[in-house]
Parts: sequence; structure tokens; C-alpha cells
Amino acid sequence: MVVTRKIGIRTKGECDLIDITAQVKREVLDSGINAGTVTVFISGSTAGISTIEYESGLVSDFQGMWDRTVPRNIPYQHDRRWGDGNGHSHVRASLLGPFLVVPFTDKTLLLGTWQQIVVADFDNRPRSREIVLQIMGE
Amino acid sequence: MVVTRKIGIRTKGECDLIDITAQVKREVLDSGINAGTVTVFISGSTAGISTIEYESGLVSDFQGMWDRTVPRNIPYQHDRRWGDGNGHSHVRASLLGPFLVVPFTDKTLLLGTWQQIVVADFDNRPRSREIVLQIMGE
Amino acid sequence: MVVTRKIGIRTKGECDLIDITAQVKREVLDSGINAGTVTVFISGSTAGISTIEYESGLVSDFQGMWDRTVPRNIPYQHDRRWGDGNGHSHVRASLLGPFLVVPFTDKTLLLGTWQQIVVADFDNRPRSREIVLQIMGE
Repeated sequence: MVVTRKIGIRTKGECDLIDITAQVKREVLDSGINAGTVTVFISGSTAGISTIEYESGLVSDFQGMWDRTVPRNIPYQHDRRWGDGNGHSHVRASLLGPFLVVPFTDKTLLLGTWQQIVVADFDNRPRSREIVLQIMGE
Repeated sequence: MVVTRKIGIRTKGECDLIDITAQVKREVLDSGINAGTVTVFISGSTAGISTIEYESGLVSDFQGMWDRTVPRNIPYQHDRRWGDGNGHSHVRASLLGPFLVVPFTDKTLLLGTWQQIVVADFDNRPRSREIVLQIMGE
Repeated sequence: MVVTRKIGIRTKGECDLIDITAQVKREVLDSGINAGTVTVFISGSTAGISTIEYESGLVSDFQGMWDRTVPRNIPYQHDRRWGDGNGHSHVRASLLGPFLVVPFTDKTLLLGTWQQIVVADFDNRPRSREIVLQIMGE
């Protein structure tokens, strides 16, 4: 059994982290599927999905890691060629990955208590984003 | 068809790498499902899942990469706020990701010969961990 | 319903990026499954899977990120022990991850327009690679 749902969010860019755990829980509960997996996928090449303990200290620490590891202010061939100024956004998104798969039983996601599902929007401007939930199971 | 299994392990923390390939193989074989995927998921926000050629040289090289990329001894807002001392553990876990999906056919995981499934526990202390296996297929 | 397909590719190594989007689309269309997920998995411990806007500037930027983050020319215990010279390849592959899960509906992958599926071969020599597609759904 397969149920497809979509979540729309607005992001501010530059590693804006959006907690979508409540929406994913609601859609799984509402899907009528008891046990299986939900694949959380973001279309687009400048955002990623992961889990984090969603508190402001770690949100800042996560952003700091990206600023050190894949800096904004170094030359990118993508920017030289297309002038988008978001070469770093693309590279960060490819490293993090655009998806997450979470198992559930009894219609309940098997997340830890301090483990939230987040969208990381790395683009260099505000965006409207659509996240696909592919809920599969029995 | 969906079968849920759990594996319990004990870890030493600070990027302790635990090879769980044998347990995952056993649970897939024992599930009664012939072909499909196993989603390996760790609840919690300071550990991750990946694959590696599990030999002591690479275990050390993988740990060295984390020490360079997401160092312990720099300031973390998480530590300043909560005093846990494991800000680096959280950031590492979010970058690596808490899950892996491996396909199988004829009840056999389609891993390479030198490709083992590992839990990376990044926390700063020994932990007991539970890994969920969501085995789906037909 | 589960359909297993395989894609064979030849790679040049050292972060060669191969766009396999067209092949994955074709196999999903041909599978007879209308809605579900395709798990793209590479057997082996020196390659990974991700998505990227596949244009030559970003291919170069992605390679540059790996050269900075997990450099070739630093000592690796793996190389000291086994003399393979590909310690960096293994570490990069473990960080990126060997798999991707993409949802589809109406036999169509829910990728963004500028989001291609790529194999990143990090090994230090040309390789023949086989990628498994596990297509599941209804």
C-alpha cells in the first residue's frame, strides 16, 4: 500500500532549518497504514533533509559546520558560469542528501525523543518548498 | 509485507564504529521476505549509520576525518546552553544521517564483499543503543 | 510488488560523477509499478550516490569540496596497512553514503527539474560498477 502526501513550507535560505516532524507524524497517522516506512524527499538541488535535536544552540552549530566545511566566500565554478551566487548551496545539498527514510509501527514514527525531522534550505534566498512523503507499508 | 526487528548494541562513544552486518543479514534471512529492502534506522540524535570496509585502518581514518571536519575542541552553542559537552556529536550525526536502506534478493543483502553496515556512535560517553530494522518486500 | 533491475557503468575514478537519471527513469517506467520508491544502491565501499544539478561547474565544485574536506595527500592508516592508495576514497564514500531513495507516482520520479541522480566514484582508478535499483510499490 502506497500513500503520497505533500507538505508545503516557506524557508528563508542560507541553511534555514525547518522542523517538519509534526506534519510528517500527522500524515502518517492519517494515511491508514499501520506499519512501514515514510520516505521524506525534497525536489530541488539546493536543500536537504536530516534529523537533529531541534534547539537553537544546535541549529546554530549545524549552520556553523556548513560555513566551515563548504564556505560561501570561496570561488565556485557554478557562480562564475551562471551568476547564481549559490554554488555553495548546491554542494551542501549534494553532501547532505535530499531524503530521509523513517520506519513506523502502530502508526508511530520510531524517532528518538530529541530527534526531529528537518529540512535544511541552503539556497541564498527565501523559497517556497514542497516536500513529498511516500508512505508505504501495510 | 512488513517485518520489524530490533538490534541492541553497546557502544563506547566518540565515533565508536560497530559492525552490525551479521545481525542484519540474520534478521533478513529470518523474516520470511524474499526480496525487498531493509531500512536500518537509529533512534537518537548523536549516532549515525553508514557502510565501510570494516578494517582497523579505515576505522581510524574515518574517525580522523570527523576530528578534522567537525572538531570536538571548538565552541558549540549547544554545550554553552546545556553543558552536555556533545555538541560535536549532534552535528556529526546530522551530517552522516541516522539511516541506511539496503536492497536484498533471495533473502541476501546486495552489499559488496568489503562493504559492512556500521553504527557510528558519536556521543561523548558509552551508550546502549537500539537499531530498528524495517524489512519490507514480498 | 518488488522489481529488481541493474545498471552497469564505467567510471574514471577520483570523484568521477556519472549521471544515471535517464536509466533510472527508464527502469521505473518499464517496471509496471505505478507508485512507490526506487532505492538506488551501489555495492562497494569506494563510491556513493546523491543528487546534483548536473552541469560542469557544479561537478567541479563538488570535486573541489571533497579535495578540501577529505584530502588525498594526507596519511591514511588504510594505505599504510594495505598499500591501496585509496584511503581517501573509502572515507569519502562512507560520508556520502551508498544509496538514494526516490519516490515516484504515475511512473514518474518526483525529482526537481535541475536535480539529477549521480554516482560518485571516489576510487583511485577506473572501475566497472553495477548499480542496483530496487523498485517497490503498487
